[in-house]
Amino acid sequence: MSDARIYATYWIETAFPLEQAAATMAGEQSTGTFVRVPGETDELRAAHAARVEEITELGEVALPSLPGSGLPKTGDATRRAARVVVSWPISNMGLSLPNLLATINGNLSELKAFSGLRLLDVKLPAEFLTRYQGPQFGVAGTRTLAGVHDRPIIGTIIKPSVGLSPEATADQVRVLVEAGVDFIKDDELQADGPHCPFEQRTSAVMRVINAHADRTGKKVMYAANLTGEIDEMLARHDHVLAQGGTCIMASMNSIGLPAMKMLRAHSQLPIHGHRNGWGMLGRSPAIGMSYIAFQKLWRLAGIDHTHVNGIANKFCESDDSVIASARECLTPMFDAPHPGCEIMPVFSSGQSARQAAPTFAALGSVDCMFAAGGGIMAHPAGPAAGVRALLQAWEAAVAGVPVAEAARQSPELEAALAAFGG
Amino acid sequence: MSDARIYATYWIETAFPLEQAAATMAGEQSTGTFVRVPGETDELRAAHAARVEEITELGEVALPSLPGSGLPKTGDATRRAARVVVSWPISNMGLSLPNLLATINGNLSELKAFSGLRLLDVKLPAEFLTRYQGPQFGVAGTRTLAGVHDRPIIGTIIKPSVGLSPEATADQVRVLVEAGVDFIKDDELQADGPHCPFEQRTSAVMRVINAHADRTGKKVMYAANLTGEIDEMLARHDHVLAQGGTCIMASMNSIGLPAMKMLRAHSQLPIHGHRNGWGMLGRSPAIGMSYIAFQKLWRLAGIDHTHVNGIANKFCESDDSVIASARECLTPMFDAPHPGCEIMPVFSSGQSARQAAPTFAALGSVDCMFAAGGGIMAHPAGPAAGVRALLQAWEAAVAGVPVAEAARQSPELEAALAAFGG
Repeated sequence: MSDARIYATYWIETAFPLEQAAATMAGEQSTGTFVRVPGETDELRAAHAARVEEITELGEVALPSLPGSGLPKTGDATRRAARVVVSWPISNMGLSLPNLLATINGNLSELKAFSGLRLLDVKLPAEFLTRYQGPQFGVAGTRTLAGVHDRPIIGTIIKPSVGLSPEATADQVRVLVEAGVDFIKDDELQADGPHCPFEQRTSAVMRVINAHADRTGKKVMYAANLTGEIDEMLARHDHVLAQGGTCIMASMNSIGLPAMKMLRAHSQLPIHGHRNGWGMLGRSPAIGMSYIAFQKLWRLAGIDHTHVNGIANKFCESDDSVIASARECLTPMFDAPHPGCEIMPVFSSGQSARQAAPTFAALGSVDCMFAAGGGIMAHPAGPAAGVRALLQAWEAAVAGVPVAEAARQSPELEAALAAFGG
Repeated sequence: MSDARIYATYWIETAFPLEQAAATMAGEQSTGTFVRVPGETDELRAAHAARVEEITELGEVALPSLPGSGLPKTGDATRRAARVVVSWPISNMGLSLPNLLATINGNLSELKAFSGLRLLDVKLPAEFLTRYQGPQFGVAGTRTLAGVHDRPIIGTIIKPSVGLSPEATADQVRVLVEAGVDFIKDDELQADGPHCPFEQRTSAVMRVINAHADRTGKKVMYAANLTGEIDEMLARHDHVLAQGGTCIMASMNSIGLPAMKMLRAHSQLPIHGHRNGWGMLGRSPAIGMSYIAFQKLWRLAGIDHTHVNGIANKFCESDDSVIASARECLTPMFDAPHPGCEIMPVFSSGQSARQAAPTFAALGSVDCMFAAGGGIMAHPAGPAAGVRALLQAWEAAVAGVPVAEAARQSPELEAALAAFGG
């Protein structure tokens, strides 16, 4: 194993001097304990101590963001925020994502010196690619399977989330494939409920998709939610593959990185990484971790697509945060000649023709999935018009034509803009 | 599958009327979408809709705890906190912990109606025991293996966290077993680092422990940190078992519930569930989840011990929160005749003889592991005196003798009280 290092960037808030606070982080997560112990020699510290690489002060803070923090016993106790970069030799934990987590997160956010501590980013040496496979399909492989090039993959979700039988689900899929969508995903609440068992649902859905493909030549990609125990997930993958399916979906926070690694090693299909539960880690600015850091770990473990929310979404995430996540999905994790592990960002939540132009402007790419629920199903002229309106909106965005102008040429787009707020 | 329900209790903060806010939670996590869709019939809603069981207002809140929340378009916008209980029929997701997570957590904490949302507790029907095994050893099985009855299991941790070779680790273990500890755990930062590979470390450690057992009849329990990928964890378990080890340890947040279920099914040893990373979910009062809820999921998946921090700990958790977690570990999850799935709470972090009495008073039980690092190693008369001082402190606590009085009869305890603050 080389002497390459892992770099983690944190936002911190502390009433302790910044150098001292950063040293506490490095100590706690490498050689240190609260009391220096006999075995902790200078040689050991030199080889294994985490290193504070950079401290950027971000200004004073009036009140602690989180409860429970301490104050220095003497001296100045001005509370400050800062950006801190800490590094570790990979030989501390080896090329192991689960053990990397214990190092870069671990007990850090419980340390008393901090009234806020959040992981902002992580940079891993390419050596991790000797142990993890990264995305198998990524952007290009997903496009090939979906048969969609040079524009976003237009997607939608099966709703209601629970309560549909396998046949009712397939009926809804029939409407959607006939409407012309490229991609359909299960809801994250429906994996293998007793009223809609996984195998029956996916068999019924794939019969519809396969029949449509036979007729039209277009095989719609269906992300079948196989979230479950490990043996279940592997068996469900095999079932989807046998039915001619082209995608599987798993809830990342529900299954954990080791299960994802195992699923990736087994899978012959792209993995749609659903991020539900993300708000627990991501929503507070004072704790948890950014999606920038989070998605890198999961890309390495093998996801091919991930949700990034959407511009003007129905949740509480800001547009800047959405776009930062989406751009990161398309940014190489490792320098060439190593694979960059780029994946498809999936825009969703309250998306309609109105968001095409601002999304394209901010992302600078059509390499994305653009998923709309109501934006397709609730189009006044029906779902097919809903899909056409989205395609027209993206065409206009790429051509640099204002959407209102484009709408004058296309009644579906005009109706979509009228129907979906302003 | 029965029509039993899952109950989840949340703390929420919202500027919307509480009934409306709670209905949003129930809708988002069951039948609802932002727009009511054609398939969402009344029958479907009756069978599958989540139900708001209870709303307890907790008072007005001046400022939003988290950014990004919305305000009602009309009417009163007083921000309030409340405790809300929501229930779901188990037939929505089936007996699946990964899918339960998507339901009880999922997108909830990202909903715009809330400026704070935290899972406080969860109550599951006993039917889950048909799919999950729960703890294999729990309190009684751990006591049998450790040979410790009617008092806490006195534990310690190997420090420094990283940098020791297998032989240096074993040397430290020799000091600790000779000092009389009952239990030793690896640091969560050391699982299989290239300088301290798992098999070599555990072999070296078990040689020391086995030799000590041969001499004294006392087999010290060693929680070997096998955190890693799934195949690695199963193989490492087998190695520990073959060496005569009596415990394995895994970082819960690093491996995920499906990996824990698989490890539990394979394991012939108690599983020490390390909670590092917990601060990310647990520290903010406005987001994430309580340890009360968290540990129930992992108990069901199969852990036998878990960390609860300690009274007057070096981290930022309050004593009340520590004790609530510890008591919960000893509280049955299911009514008799079902197993209660009780597990050993593990007190640690800055623990010394001073915390025995308040811990016993608050816990009302000696069914715990009480782990001290500096509290043993830094005792002025050496580690054996450190262990004896802890035992004496607990004996006094159980007997109702004030620790200062007990110290007059025992020089080790007196020295401990003098050494470890006041």
